[in-house]
Parts: sequence; C-alpha cells; structure tokens
Amino acid sequence: MTTMIELGKRAKEASVELGKLSAEVKNIALQAMADALEKNEDEIVSANLRDVAAVKSKGVKPALLDRLILDNSRITKMARSLREIATLPDPIGQIVKTWTRPNGLIIGQIRVPLGVIGMIYESRPDVTSDASGICLKSGNAVILRGGSDAINSNTVLAEVLNEAAVKAGAPKAAIQVVRTTDREAVNELMRMRRYVDVLIPRGGLDLIKSVVENSRVPVIETGIGNCHIYVEEDADLQEAIPIILNAKCQRPGTCNAVEKLLVNQNIAEIFIPTIVRSLRESDVEVRGCSQTVKLVRDIALISDEEWYKEYLDLVISIKIVSDLGEAIKHINQYGSHHTDAILTRDFSKALRFIKEIDSAAVNWNASTRFTDGNQYGLGAEIGISTQKIHARGPMSIEHLTTMKYFVLGRGHLRQ
Amino acid sequence: MTTMIELGKRAKEASVELGKLSAEVKNIALQAMADALEKNEDEIVSANLRDVAAVKSKGVKPALLDRLILDNSRITKMARSLREIATLPDPIGQIVKTWTRPNGLIIGQIRVPLGVIGMIYESRPDVTSDASGICLKSGNAVILRGGSDAINSNTVLAEVLNEAAVKAGAPKAAIQVVRTTDREAVNELMRMRRYVDVLIPRGGLDLIKSVVENSRVPVIETGIGNCHIYVEEDADLQEAIPIILNAKCQRPGTCNAVEKLLVNQNIAEIFIPTIVRSLRESDVEVRGCSQTVKLVRDIALISDEEWYKEYLDLVISIKIVSDLGEAIKHINQYGSHHTDAILTRDFSKALRFIKEIDSAAVNWNASTRFTDGNQYGLGAEIGISTQKIHARGPMSIEHLTTMKYFVLGRGHLRQ
Repeated sequence: MTTMIELGKRAKEASVELGKLSAEVKNIALQAMADALEKNEDEIVSANLRDVAAVKSKGVKPALLDRLILDNSRITKMARSLREIATLPDPIGQIVKTWTRPNGLIIGQIRVPLGVIGMIYESRPDVTSDASGICLKSGNAVILRGGSDAINSNTVLAEVLNEAAVKAGAPKAAIQVVRTTDREAVNELMRMRRYVDVLIPRGGLDLIKSVVENSRVPVIETGIGNCHIYVEEDADLQEAIPIILNAKCQRPGTCNAVEKLLVNQNIAEIFIPTIVRSLRESDVEVRGCSQTVKLVRDIALISDEEWYKEYLDLVISIKIVSDLGEAIKHINQYGSHHTDAILTRDFSKALRFIKEIDSAAVNWNASTRFTDGNQYGLGAEIGISTQKIHARGPMSIEHLTTMKYFVLGRGHLRQ
Repeated sequence: MTTMIELGKRAKEASVELGKLSAEVKNIALQAMADALEKNEDEIVSANLRDVAAVKSKGVKPALLDRLILDNSRITKMARSLREIATLPDPIGQIVKTWTRPNGLIIGQIRVPLGVIGMIYESRPDVTSDASGICLKSGNAVILRGGSDAINSNTVLAEVLNEAAVKAGAPKAAIQVVRTTDREAVNELMRMRRYVDVLIPRGGLDLIKSVVENSRVPVIETGIGNCHIYVEEDADLQEAIPIILNAKCQRPGTCNAVEKLLVNQNIAEIFIPTIVRSLRESDVEVRGCSQTVKLVRDIALISDEEWYKEYLDLVISIKIVSDLGEAIKHINQYGSHHTDAILTRDFSKALRFIKEIDSAAVNWNASTRFTDGNQYGLGAEIGISTQKIHARGPMSIEHLTTMKYFVLGRGHLRQ
C-alpha cells in the first residue's frame, strides 16, 4: 500500500516535469485520456456497477444514486469535456506583464502552475475525469480523494486516465488517486504542506467545513449556495416570473439555484400572490416571513435560522423587505456569498446592489443559474469558490495557476 | 475590556462602510493620519519609551531594541509613507474586464476590498502605521495585533491613526488594535472566520508557522528568505562579485539577503578563492560544502540541515554544483521559495532558471535585495508572500483586494 507521504512525494516530483510540458504534449495527452475513457468503457462501467451495488444495499436516495452512476452517455460526456479542455489556450509560461524601473531593471510576471493540487470530493465520479484534465492542462499534478461510495469507479478512472497521459509524455504520477477509504488518509493529506500546494474540497457543507477547519494546506473553499433574488418595486414583473422560476426549477439541486426571494413591500400585495401561484404550479413549496404568510394561504412561517439554509430542493422562502438597503443587509447577513440577483429597471439601484452585495457573483435581471464556468465562457470549471482570496466564483484553468516575478538586470545592485 | 468577538463584529461593520468610501475621502483620511502622527509625536514617543524601558530591563539584543525604537526621524518616515499611499491609485471599483456571451449576457469583474484583515506581527511598530494606511486605501478594516514588546506604542499609534481617519470620514472601527498581550487573543483571532477575511502574519519563523498551522481564517504567508545566488560557468565574474556583496551585505537582516551561494564546478577553483576574500573583507563569515572547504582555508563544513537555514546575519555558505540542473534541484529542495538569482551571460540558461525555480522572485544578473514593493515600483508593501495562492512576492494595495463577477441581463434565463 502506498503511503500518503509517498503519494505526495511522487506528485511533487511529477509537478516539476508537468510544469515544463509544452501545450502540444498536454493537448495530445488530453486527447489520449478522452480516447482511453471510451476504449475502457466496459472496465469503467463494471467497476462502477460494484460501487452502485454497494450503495444500493445501503438503501440511499435515488438522487444520490443517480450522481454515482456511470453509463455510456456519461462516459461520452466526460471524454468530450477532456477534448474541450485540449482546445482551450494554455496559460502556462504566459508573460502577464513587464515594466522597466528608473534604474533600468526589467520586472515582469510569468504564469506558472500551482504545483500539486489535492481534490477532496463526494460521490460524483465525473469530477475525477474533469479535475484530472483541468489539472493536467494547467501543469499541475493532482491527488484525487473521491467519496468512499465511488472508490472502485475512481480508482479505475484515475488508472485509465493516468496511463493514457503517461503514454503521451506526462510524468508517471501526474494523476494519482487515494486508494483507501480510511478517513486518516484525508487527515494526512490536509497536513502535507510540503507536498501539496492547495486543497480544493467539493461537496456538502460538512465536507467543506471539515477541510476548511482542519487543513494546514491552503484551501480554496467551494461553497454552498444560499442564493437570493431581490425584486425591487420598479422591477419588470412580467420578466421577474420566468427569471425566478428558472433560478429555482431549472436544476434545483445545484448551488446556484435560488433559495430565497426578497420582495419590496410596495409590490408585495400584487406580486407575491402571483409568484406563489407560478411557483406552486411548478411544484415548488413556498415558505415565508411573518408578513408573507398573511398575504397568501398555506405558507409555512420559517424560523430565523432557516434564512441561512440551502435547500437544494424545490423549496423557496419569501421575505418582504422595506427597501433596497434592507435587502442588501439581509443578503449579506444570511446569504452564503455565492450568487445573488436584483430585478430592477433602475441602473443606479443595480449598481448599488452590485457594489454592496458581498458575493462571488451579483446578477442584474438575470437568473442565478448563470454562475458556472461554461455559462461564463471560461471553458472547463473545477468548482465555484465562495472565498475571497485567490479565486472567487467559477474557477477555470487559469485559477489553478500562480505568477512569479522575474527581475532582469545587468549587474544591478540595490542602493 | 473589548472582547475579540466584539472587535471582529465592529471591524466587519466598518468594512461595509469602508468599501463604499470614495478615493477622495480615503486620501484625505491618509493625509490626516500622517498629520496626526506628527502632531502627536510626544505622546507616541513617551508610549514608546515605556516599551523600550520594559524591553531593556529584560536585556535583549541591540538589533531587536533598534527595531522597537520610535524617534522623530522614524515618525517622520511613517508619516511620509502614509502621504505616499494617498498618492497611489485607488484600485476599488475598477472594472477589471467585461465580455459578452453569445446570448447577450454581459459578464465582468469588478475589484472590491477583501473586507477585514488581521495583521499579526512582531516588534516593529512602523508596521502599525503602514498596515493601517494600506488597509484603509484598499477599503479594508484592519485588526492589528503587534508584538507584546510594542503594546504601548501600538496602542497609541492605532488610536491616533484611527481618530484622524474617523474625523476625515472613515467609519469608527476602521483601525483597531488588540489591547491585550494575552496569547489567547491570537487564538481567537485565528478562529474568527465569520469576521476576519484574511490573516497576514509578519515576523519570525515561529510566529508564521504557528499562524499557518493553527489558523482557520485564510492566511497569506509572508515568508522567511533562504535566498540563493547561482554563478554559472559563463557568468561575468567581475560583475558577480559586487552583486553577491550587495545581496549579502547591503542589509543582512532582511529576508531578501542572500544566504547561500552555488558555484558551477568549472569555475570553482578560480572564483571561490576570490569571492571568499571579498566576502571576508566585508566581515562575512563563509561556510561551505565538502568540496568548498578543500579549496579555501578556514571554511567551516556545514551539515545538510544548514542548507535549509536563514542566517539573517553576515554569514554565507557556498556549495559547488556540477551544473545548472543540480543548482535548480538544490534550490527547489532547500530554498524557501522567496528569491533566487542566476548569474550568467546565456539567455537560454537564464530562461530555464526563471521557469524552473519555484520561488516568488527569480532574478537574472541582479541582486536578491530587489524583492521589495518599493523597488518593484508597486508603492507601499504590506509584506512579501512566499505562498502561491492569492499573492506571491511583494504585496501591494491591489493584493488586499478581490474581484467579484457581475452579470448583466435583460431577463436572461439559463437554457
């Protein structure tokens, strides 16, 4: 059994070689990885069936089971993602800027990989393939630690992907998977500052909280989404209804789905009954504040605590607020700093909302569901950061890089 | 006594207001802060004298005592720094980029403050003033926790600075200082994720290690500097000598002073005796590897462990390496990823060094002492980051900001 330290050492060594690979070799490797997924479909599916059987015997929810399953169409999709990553520009080696100092010293910044990335995630095995591709393209070695439910799928996937990458010229330990489901392995990973440059946790609140609180390796926090839409009194209410329905129903289990609706008090009486009807027609359960429950029948009153909650389900809670200022204050206090939207016709109100809402993405007259690397046109996405340092919002290949300064002198001395 | 949680809450509230301040108000506040330092010089000096007396009675080294002392010339310098910060451009509110998606959605990034910054630092009280100025200019609230040796100086400085800033229009808790020297206060600060957005430790290895290992708040690690100069066989040896002397002697107690000298074996016999003579003439103690000690008399052989060490003193160790590859490997293994330099005439060798050395700053034919915000022309500097995420190398005002995405739609729905 490979120890975690060995895994880390190998990844660090591999990262040195990965940092030197040309875009051409990396793109050939990505194509080869995509081909390998398709060629080894039977092996992948059979490993996945073992995971699915084990999970079924535990009797989990259908939604969880669905996330775990790898079939022909999902494998095709994973392969397509890898081929798309191959077509994206290579950020490594890019001279970001240069300037010359009065003493003639030329100073610049060059983009380089982070080094070794640790991914800690839950059941979705397609993360294994996406993360491998994005890390390889950005010149980083990756250590993958998926959920224990997907251990067989992830092990086979990582083997297939790494073998293909190595054949195309990548170093031996470019893509490694933690082969044990022992929790101690995660604890070790979180202490390996010497070998791991950054940890990215992806999954539920408990997983992220545990990594953020226990890791000594720098973490990029990918967040939960308690997203809001605020309807200002001058909003186009005809436009508001489809935006709210889209944000809530287009895919309710995602972090950028809307969970809370704030409505200006001056339009509450006309707008709330209408939107509640539309939401209920789309099978959404509506809850609300003490004022909202007085306006429409059968709306459950929620507790203060629930304003912090991410439902990830066909549920929404409505709050009536006195004005834009109260909406901003409420969102900054109870929100999760992911995505929040304002619906208004007024530019100055929108600008105030954009400036004062302390979230990764702030939308004006658009669904919250747009917070996504592909929707933004960033190409592949490795997660959505809700922290402020390093990267905020959808993270693409470029966010897995850093810069270093270079200083070009001709015998320059500091005075 | 204000609790740490109260300090945090007030800072968070202040940060909302600070984020909205115009550049004009911030610059007036900075000018007022500079004036206030000069006007309250007597009070500051007398608080500082209490600190100095307490430290003297403990019998510390003169170098440490020197860092603590605030006299007229240092207060003038602190005031000048604040006035310089006032002249720098305001990064807040800058639209960094925008682009339009095929569906007409306009997406962009706008620069905003981080929020609340916690500074944990050792004795130098000028950090109190510099950090206050840089945080204010970047729209952040700051919680200052200086060394216990400087508690009286820091408390008075923060009071004087905050009072001036508030009079000019800053919110009440823009600049706060932790008034207790109790270690538990630091532990609390490191757990206050809800109120503190980032912690910046500045000081010795133990302080930084303790913050990095124990903080739950994201940390920007400012580093120790075990800096290297590698002399390639084709280097201009006449140019090499002043560069090495400058890097070692210009200010040996700083993190960007050179600590290790690597010399290509093909020039070792001619170059090492010469450089040792020059170094000794400048009172530098020279140590070395097993090959170096054979070349020159009275050079102490160092242990493997010592290659990791930062001297911060007039000491340097020399190692003979077989080629550029060995030099790169040695630096990446034993260095502290701060600043490393190559002396060579060959562009391709320099480029390889720049690309493969895993450090914040990589210099070609220039002294390591240039790694500094002012030397780079970045204006004020809050520290030198040796970590890879968020900021790497000298950190200026811009590095205390983050960006958020804004999405401008006209009823856009996700398909």
